[in-house]
Amino acid sequence: MRAKESTKTGVWLIGARGGLATTLLAGVKLIGKKLVSSCGLLTETPGLQGVAFPALSDLVFGGHDIRKGRVYETAVEIYRETGTIPYDKLEVVKDELAEIDDDIALGTARNCGPAIERLGVPKARNLRGTLQDDVDRLGADMRAFQKRHKLGTVIVVNLASTEPPAGTGPAAKDPALFRKALLTRAAASSNGRVRGQAFRASTLYAAAAAASGFPFVNFTPSSGALPPALQAIFGESGLPFMGNDGKTGETLVKSAIAPMFKYRNLTVLAWQGYNILGDRDGLVLSDASNRQSKIDSKDSVLASILGYKPHTKVGIDYVPSLHDLKTAWDFVHFQGFLDYKMALQFIWQGCDAILAAPLVLDLVRFAALALRKEEKGPMRHLACFFKDPVGVAEQDLHGQFHQLLAYVERARGNQRSKA
Amino acid sequence: MRAKESTKTGVWLIGARGGLATTLLAGVKLIGKKLVSSCGLLTETPGLQGVAFPALSDLVFGGHDIRKGRVYETAVEIYRETGTIPYDKLEVVKDELAEIDDDIALGTARNCGPAIERLGVPKARNLRGTLQDDVDRLGADMRAFQKRHKLGTVIVVNLASTEPPAGTGPAAKDPALFRKALLTRAAASSNGRVRGQAFRASTLYAAAAAASGFPFVNFTPSSGALPPALQAIFGESGLPFMGNDGKTGETLVKSAIAPMFKYRNLTVLAWQGYNILGDRDGLVLSDASNRQSKIDSKDSVLASILGYKPHTKVGIDYVPSLHDLKTAWDFVHFQGFLDYKMALQFIWQGCDAILAAPLVLDLVRFAALALRKEEKGPMRHLACFFKDPVGVAEQDLHGQFHQLLAYVERARGNQRSKA
Amino acid sequence: MRAKESTKTGVWLIGARGGLATTLLAGVKLIGKKLVSSCGLLTETPGLQGVAFPALSDLVFGGHDIRKGRVYETAVEIYRETGTIPYDKLEVVKDELAEIDDDIALGTARNCGPAIERLGVPKARNLRGTLQDDVDRLGADMRAFQKRHKLGTVIVVNLASTEPPAGTGPAAKDPALFRKALLTRAAASSNGRVRGQAFRASTLYAAAAAASGFPFVNFTPSSGALPPALQAIFGESGLPFMGNDGKTGETLVKSAIAPMFKYRNLTVLAWQGYNILGDRDGLVLSDASNRQSKIDSKDSVLASILGYKPHTKVGIDYVPSLHDLKTAWDFVHFQGFLDYKMALQFIWQGCDAILAAPLVLDLVRFAALALRKEEKGPMRHLACFFKDPVGVAEQDLHGQFHQLLAYVERARGNQRSKA
Amino acid sequence: MRAKESTKTGVWLIGARGGLATTLLAGVKLIGKKLVSSCGLLTETPGLQGVAFPALSDLVFGGHDIRKGRVYETAVEIYRETGTIPYDKLEVVKDELAEIDDDIALGTARNCGPAIERLGVPKARNLRGTLQDDVDRLGADMRAFQKRHKLGTVIVVNLASTEPPAGTGPAAKDPALFRKALLTRAAASSNGRVRGQAFRASTLYAAAAAASGFPFVNFTPSSGALPPALQAIFGESGLPFMGNDGKTGETLVKSAIAPMFKYRNLTVLAWQGYNILGDRDGLVLSDASNRQSKIDSKDSVLASILGYKPHTKVGIDYVPSLHDLKTAWDFVHFQGFLDYKMALQFIWQGCDAILAAPLVLDLVRFAALALRKEEKGPMRHLACFFKDPVGVAEQDLHGQFHQLLAYVERARGNQRSKA
Repeated sequence: MRAKESTKTGVWLIGARGGLATTLLAGVKLIGKKLVSSCGLLTETPGLQGVAFPALSDLVFGGHDIRKGRVYETAVEIYRETGTIPYDKLEVVKDELAEIDDDIALGTARNCGPAIERLGVPKARNLRGTLQDDVDRLGADMRAFQKRHKLGTVIVVNLASTEPPAGTGPAAKDPALFRKALLTRAAASSNGRVRGQAFRASTLYAAAAAASGFPFVNFTPSSGALPPALQAIFGESGLPFMGNDGKTGETLVKSAIAPMFKYRNLTVLAWQGYNILGDRDGLVLSDASNRQSKIDSKDSVLASILGYKPHTKVGIDYVPSLHDLKTAWDFVHFQGFLDYKMALQFIWQGCDAILAAPLVLDLVRFAALALRKEEKGPMRHLACFFKDPVGVAEQDLHGQFHQLLAYVERARGNQRSKA
Repeated sequence: MRAKESTKTGVWLIGARGGLATTLLAGVKLIGKKLVSSCGLLTETPGLQGVAFPALSDLVFGGHDIRKGRVYETAVEIYRETGTIPYDKLEVVKDELAEIDDDIALGTARNCGPAIERLGVPKARNLRGTLQDDVDRLGADMRAFQKRHKLGTVIVVNLASTEPPAGTGPAAKDPALFRKALLTRAAASSNGRVRGQAFRASTLYAAAAAASGFPFVNFTPSSGALPPALQAIFGESGLPFMGNDGKTGETLVKSAIAPMFKYRNLTVLAWQGYNILGDRDGLVLSDASNRQSKIDSKDSVLASILGYKPHTKVGIDYVPSLHDLKTAWDFVHFQGFLDYKMALQFIWQGCDAILAAPLVLDLVRFAALALRKEEKGPMRHLACFFKDPVGVAEQDLHGQFHQLLAYVERARGNQRSKA
Repeated sequence: MRAKESTKTGVWLIGARGGLATTLLAGVKLIGKKLVSSCGLLTETPGLQGVAFPALSDLVFGGHDIRKGRVYETAVEIYRETGTIPYDKLEVVKDELAEIDDDIALGTARNCGPAIERLGVPKARNLRGTLQDDVDRLGADMRAFQKRHKLGTVIVVNLASTEPPAGTGPAAKDPALFRKALLTRAAASSNGRVRGQAFRASTLYAAAAAASGFPFVNFTPSSGALPPALQAIFGESGLPFMGNDGKTGETLVKSAIAPMFKYRNLTVLAWQGYNILGDRDGLVLSDASNRQSKIDSKDSVLASILGYKPHTKVGIDYVPSLHDLKTAWDFVHFQGFLDYKMALQFIWQGCDAILAAPLVLDLVRFAALALRKEEKGPMRHLACFFKDPVGVAEQDLHGQFHQLLAYVERARGNQRSKA
Repeated sequence: MRAKESTKTGVWLIGARGGLATTLLAGVKLIGKKLVSSCGLLTETPGLQGVAFPALSDLVFGGHDIRKGRVYETAVEIYRETGTIPYDKLEVVKDELAEIDDDIALGTARNCGPAIERLGVPKARNLRGTLQDDVDRLGADMRAFQKRHKLGTVIVVNLASTEPPAGTGPAAKDPALFRKALLTRAAASSNGRVRGQAFRASTLYAAAAAASGFPFVNFTPSSGALPPALQAIFGESGLPFMGNDGKTGETLVKSAIAPMFKYRNLTVLAWQGYNILGDRDGLVLSDASNRQSKIDSKDSVLASILGYKPHTKVGIDYVPSLHDLKTAWDFVHFQGFLDYKMALQFIWQGCDAILAAPLVLDLVRFAALALRKEEKGPMRHLACFFKDPVGVAEQDLHGQFHQLLAYVERARGNQRSKA
């Protein structure tokens, strides 16, 4: 599937009409016109120069979505809601954004539970075929995109709304059983609970990527995306993948500060975190079963860093007026010398899409690099980008970042030695 | 001066009747009685076990102060003001605290400026002899303490109120000129400004430690404590030393979080920090010239970590009702993808003495170890304890901590190989 | 029941061994010794002088509790947990507190749900008699207290843990049906849900007060305390009463700030409030059914003040390390000119018992005054003390306070005209 | 000067090209097109209906400025800096904003100190004539505007940057001496200090309004605008006026919350307020002498409300990246029962111009009403709009608002009785 002679790299976004994808697309186009800086992109910093990432201008975008609409219209909507995409500059790249619409195909909401199914067009959720029929259709879309644009490879990235937790039956663990289960019509029950073999949409997309020979990045906590059986299939196929759940806000700060308490032998008694947000993502998360996936992924960080489990709570509430301008209040109660109790509070006011979009671009470039270097399986060096990095125990942001730097150093060394 | 056969280590506190020293002393005695935990002490964590630190129960305490009073009485005052020292438990160690009073000698406020001189008894500030006369008297106190208690060594620690910035004339740089200047009566002018050779009290204490063969730790920002000339003298004498300014609160958090912005290529536009506190330290810092030393030491951290200088401000205001319960609000304005601006705020509510006391004990134990290992000059591996570590450019708390761990690993290895 | 010749007034505390009652009792005794100021007591301010309140020194304390223990011991426990009661001063009033223990009788946990029943001694919850048997026994305790101390009257105040919401059947509305229901053994089902006639403990205490001719103040949100049928009985008996739920923290601030948005025609889009606390009260509130009573009472304030219902959330979470030092974060999202959105956040760090205790004393004194003035039914002028004031629509703190001042003015006028 | 037959009312803005004026102008035009709501305007709420205010659509705008530029361009600049003015909607009213430019005349920076003089074109600050020459020229501009648009009256509003404190010599107090002083060239010294008769620009504008028969509203803390001598002249001329310093942010919240502490007899120990902002206003305020006027006006509120003076600090710092999105952190330390200390913090994130613009419109409409009702001297009923209301001791926001409501009630009554 790899056309190595091409310098173009495809980026296939699951959820291509969502807020995050739209922000990413508007941003790439505006950076290309030098109307905004490359702020937020780690792969554009001096420390990461000299590594053979694909150029930003060589990325070509397409994707799946379960909703209708046009990228430009979503961008205007975002401007109206939060002002994060500048209206005056948006006009300049209107035509470039319009072209992308032609590369967005209808996705699937299969087995995603009612909170997500409500968002999609009827066609996206009323599917009569087997799961494998879906995988085939989705993969065909991806490969057609590659062919249409003569792309060296395509990096598939899941940006779709958080699904409820996935089932963990035998079919999730064994590649043969997994392949067999795809041949059924296994469906989640009406309340969104999934039987072991009723794989959710995110898993179907990932299977389509694997079948097409494309790397896969799961930027969401939809744990269904990468059951062990599918991880094994990626490994067998010689393909790199990574996830789960981009680390963009409260958890990012948490993983940056928590080590400080360890360095000072200050005992964390309680760490309460309250997130409020209001976009489509927030609406899906206001559904208790979808929220659980998110909270699981956010709450595991502390015990791993501190070495003990303090009293914790991670709350996520839907506040529609905020749209994507997430606000989080964290209260950390800790104990020091003489067993005296003190407190650190922080308030994080960040736009999720603004924080996530450059990470997605960084991840795409790292995945393209890994494919070229013929790495396969989980890209563990990318742990610092994820709340719940596959195959990595280290949750300390600083430790994770130094692992990334070490990888970059090696990558640079290899390039030099080849030259 | 080292009586290696003794297992006891002396701890000589400059400012022995202050809030920090009192908290430290009450804490050590209560830990000894198992009435409080060893929370806050890094040297008591599992990660630092197996290193030949002096036992907490083998530390003997004395010191200098320019004020009258008894340690127990200060402890009760602290209980009344902030509740950090528990009254009921304090009663149990009342007699042990009383014994320490006998080992506290009259210090000097020489050349410290009016804000500090006002705090001392008249005898501490009206001195007619040369600076060397002071050094001799202070050193004699330290050595008498060593002899009285048959101590292996004495670690001298400066905990006294922050002095105004020191002069930087030739006598501060050249050991010979420095020794010559000590033989004069050089005095700071009435507004607290110091001429190049009018060394401040903290420098005189440090010179007394060096002359007595004792390591010296400067826990304050009084930069006068360690002019290059005196650093050279410590090196020549084969003595370790370290400073400046214990990293206990807002700066600690700052040095823990700031790297996060670098990892994400988020541009810090402004970092405003406002500290309010109300103890004796706060009163001294409400004097503009004394405050400047503190602010200089707090403000250099960011540019070093980020690689550029954002708009910054560090304010310190005196709020008497808070006593030692310092509160700090930091507002960090930063820019991300699409040049969109976001904010992180944190509120730090910590008791300075509670946070500082265990660091002092950790530093004393590390200094005793360094002396035993015949290390000399600045103990660079202790950078994570200081706002402005002598001889260390690294300001990233995580980098600093890993340097400490590496030192500990080596120390442990050496012990094993000797055994 | 009123022995008008006596100058002593009884205060009968339901929950007399709880944190709030203990704080109140320690405070009254320490104010009496002039060891602390009368800070927090509105009835001690210059603006309320010249009103014939009972003197603080003329108040005599007793009460019911479902737990064992001694007031002094609880006070020491509070000192250890939060430091709010000063240990050194507590020693001075130890004997006075011990005397109160003799006037604390066994209460009832009848129909209070498992979260409360778990707290009590077995005898408090395994009751075989009718509800009326309980009322008789509780009333007998109150009257014996009056007789023993020769008290002019007794003010009964409910400070017990928040019960789950009460039933609202016909027996709650009609005095005759109410009296009939008391003659049964009606019990709440095992999950704490209450049938219409299974009145909760707080209602039984209130009925006992009414039967004894004593005013009743409900400082908790236990709405079961004052069903309409019982309100009618108080009215018929010529007795004043008031409730519900002392306004001490986040809601107090809310009702002070919310009018500001109205004055400026700033539209409140969302008001999210997150409370964290850790005492026995917090533990009971961590039970979802008990918490509901509290949240209902906190959430009604905004719509009443603003005239429309913004998106709101009131969360209460149990954080054991905080004990009674409640912390609340409120995020107010609002819209102004050009429909631009802005935010006000506040963080409230107050000790609930410290804030509540003086209100209870103020309420007791106002209730004694009302009884003397032969007022009956709800004391509407006390609205500013309650989250959910009986019979009062006004939720604006400022409006409520001016109603109180007007009442005081009239009370003062009457006294003068009688003199 | 009053052409009562006209239904049009002029609004003459001093500082017509500034951020506040631009926001106001864009807002009025967008409200007129129904592209934004009338949020923020008190005079558009149901509670104030039925009062004979001029219609928003009957207001005609002009003014003075010391800078060049066009209103639309400033509006675009504001869009780029803070996003408060929506770019897409702005395009719709571009032509209407362009018309206003024709009615903006060159103002004066006379005696305003270097921080302001730097902002103006050279012609605005190099004036050779007497102060009276300025007054004549400024008044002529105002009257020409009235004539050009056939306006019933013109309300003059000062929105210009904060001047340093004004002198308080005899000429500031006595109308005759004042008029005499205007006939000189009295100039502020080069460091911005003003001699008693060197009246600042704001006073010259006010004098021009008085001489033209126009009401005057001082929305800034420039105290020079209304010296007693000039107040007397307004009174003699039968003209209403009001000031000083619009209450839009931190002080607004302060005056809303502070009464709460009084209602609960909670002693405020300290109230520290830190404001950070970054627009042109912030730049001028970063000049110490200009800042002093602002701080004086902000700091007097608390003592007036509480009845005693707690420890306070009001800081204002310039943070350029924030532009007009002011952020303020207030820390309130207070003491309650048992003398226990607690804290309330609030964080205010509001855009100054967005908060101020509707107040200016409200004030203009109230001033037009007062003129029609033939009221003269300070409009005390408008106290709730100002930090330092002329002739009003009441600082409690709630008290002030009820005074406004009472005035409105009377105004409505009069209209009815006339009808």
